Amino acid sequence: MKNFIFHNPTRIVFGEGTISKIGKNAKAFGGKALMVYGRSSIKRSGLYSRVIDLLREEAIEIVEFAGVKSNPSLSHLREGIELAKRQRIDFLLAVGGGSVIDETKAIAAGAMTNGDVWDFFTGKATIQAALPVLTILTLPASGSEMNGSMVITNEDTRQKYGFSSPYLYPRISVLDPAVTCTIPLTYTAYGAVDAMSHLLEGYFTHKDTWAPIQDRYVEGLVKTIMESTERIFADPEDYQGRATMMWAATLAWNGLALAGVGKAGLPNHMLEHPLSGIYDIPHGAGLSVVIPGWMKYVSGKDCRKIARFAENVLGLKRDSKKSTAEKGITALKRWFEKIGSPTSFSAANIPASDLDEIVENAAALAELWGLNDYPKEVIAEIYKMCL
Amino acid sequence: MKNFIFHNPTRIVFGEGTISKIGKNAKAFGGKALMVYGRSSIKRSGLYSRVIDLLREEAIEIVEFAGVKSNPSLSHLREGIELAKRQRIDFLLAVGGGSVIDETKAIAAGAMTNGDVWDFFTGKATIQAALPVLTILTLPASGSEMNGSMVITNEDTRQKYGFSSPYLYPRISVLDPAVTCTIPLTYTAYGAVDAMSHLLEGYFTHKDTWAPIQDRYVEGLVKTIMESTERIFADPEDYQGRATMMWAATLAWNGLALAGVGKAGLPNHMLEHPLSGIYDIPHGAGLSVVIPGWMKYVSGKDCRKIARFAENVLGLKRDSKKSTAEKGITALKRWFEKIGSPTSFSAANIPASDLDEIVENAAALAELWGLNDYPKEVIAEIYKMCL
Repeated sequence: MKNFIFHNPTRIVFGEGTISKIGKNAKAFGGKALMVYGRSSIKRSGLYSRVIDLLREEAIEIVEFAGVKSNPSLSHLREGIELAKRQRIDFLLAVGGGSVIDETKAIAAGAMTNGDVWDFFTGKATIQAALPVLTILTLPASGSEMNGSMVITNEDTRQKYGFSSPYLYPRISVLDPAVTCTIPLTYTAYGAVDAMSHLLEGYFTHKDTWAPIQDRYVEGLVKTIMESTERIFADPEDYQGRATMMWAATLAWNGLALAGVGKAGLPNHMLEHPLSGIYDIPHGAGLSVVIPGWMKYVSGKDCRKIARFAENVLGLKRDSKKSTAEKGITALKRWFEKIGSPTSFSAANIPASDLDEIVENAAALAELWGLNDYPKEVIAEIYKMCL
Repeated sequence: MKNFIFHNPTRIVFGEGTISKIGKNAKAFGGKALMVYGRSSIKRSGLYSRVIDLLREEAIEIVEFAGVKSNPSLSHLREGIELAKRQRIDFLLAVGGGSVIDETKAIAAGAMTNGDVWDFFTGKATIQAALPVLTILTLPASGSEMNGSMVITNEDTRQKYGFSSPYLYPRISVLDPAVTCTIPLTYTAYGAVDAMSHLLEGYFTHKDTWAPIQDRYVEGLVKTIMESTERIFADPEDYQGRATMMWAATLAWNGLALAGVGKAGLPNHMLEHPLSGIYDIPHGAGLSVVIPGWMKYVSGKDCRKIARFAENVLGLKRDSKKSTAEKGITALKRWFEKIGSPTSFSAANIPASDLDEIVENAAALAELWGLNDYPKEVIAEIYKMCL
């Protein structure tokens, strides 16, 4: 255990029917809300109308800001900040998945500064204040509903960068699994991969020789996410499967898995961001492309943790560590394929001919994130295992 | 998963040397602190002087309130409330284990009411406000450093009752494992049993047929607490063992294990409170007296979860569920004995001849807590398995 500070003040309101509580919960934050959402999916599902009605019942004035994309863009974000400032909004309500919540957090911070919001992402500035953010989660994956992180893509430079701040924790997040029962299986799968990756980044990279709290926390949740995914694939309207997936994905990235094992290196995210940044593929799809290759690379240096993962999480019988690790990587790759998440550049329609550009993009991110074990050559070597 | 609200705003400052941060952290809460502690142990260890100096460095005026007992008493609590009111203190700092923290929380609530503080415990009144509480934890066991609960003993009536409120979450808790390296092995053992019981109460009593998040969370932490205990017994100054025990005990009772599985019934605590209430034995010691007997009683009705526990946590090979459950109960009982925590009335010097009085006390608590499955006859039957 290393020293750490753990402080997660988000209030989680979880369960079937809890959407109905959003009006009363939101009231405390002021009379004017910026409601941020994607495009048509919350209108098709009826959630949009419900939320509008609930806020109106509490006499909350609503300014709408639609159009958040799957990989939220800097240009759209800047429009949102302008709108929030111009309309002098009191708080923000994100209705959507991680992309919507991330962009909402960025608006909340950007609205309180005169500088350029992108400076937060490049490390030129730090967040000193942010407007209150509330969320209604519609797609479990990112964990953004219970953390202080956000990821935005600068479309001009194709940089997909992230930033964390204590000011960005949502005050209240409403997690109603009933709204997730209509998520298509493809997005359910990408969400599962995303949540699993959050857990595995720290598990596979922390340096503690004995970290039973954190390692068992991760193993339990990864197993649970895999089981939940299978239940949902068997019956997309399985409420318990959907509810368990939702809470597991939140717990995967709310600070708890990492408390005590140091800051996570996030090499898989470093490798993935260029893919969704350049090719606009879902983040989870990009992750399943890189994870097996990354595990193979790491296994060549030290396969012990991967062997433990194969045994404890995938239930594989242990023989030699090296062999168990190899079987584990193959089994995980097969599982990603089974749920429809791509495990190679070709399966994801990413041209291998673009490799140099992708490597450059990843190397710049690795440098920004201080991932000193990942110079260009290593990045290229790993990507070659992912083609 | 059932519906739930999860909100834990306590800020945890964890690690070696973090005691030194208490002054700066406390300053934000005002200029006058009530410092609550037990008797001489924090003076012997030097912690008392360190804390006094750190607070004085920040010009915080300190009013001392010593003498908290292991099973904190109502009469002492009332003195503390009077003192807090008379001195117009701004915030409270608990320096000690669960007993000190619990009594501090009770003072924090009692100081903001004109009514009798015991009314909170009997359900006659609810807490509407409380002064800020900060803690420096010296004995991992109760989890009180990261929850809104407190337990106090009314010595006149021998009722050991509890109460929870969102107002009672400590604002900041400093968990420095270095201060726990001198805890004698007896108290380390009682602390381990206490933390394990917090996890097992929910695990063994919730009604969900599929609760993988919560069940795996519990299994991981119980195993970890057992391993940490064994490391500490092998080397009491093992920092990693002490640190892991400390964080595991906090995570055992901060709301997370129960989120989604409904309110825990706490039958083991109902059975234990009369023992520590009447005989003033350590809470953990009382728990190890009742837990095996309670498990035996429950196993007679449904042994499946106990069999799972035996397999997943104790590593016992599964044969028939009934047999695996029995072996599990025996193994756990032996483990309690191995670490020096009593597993019978006789080992704890509790006279079997007092059984009727103890049953009455427990039955009153069972009624207050709505434990309808535990009428007097059942309570008596279970205690008879603990003699």
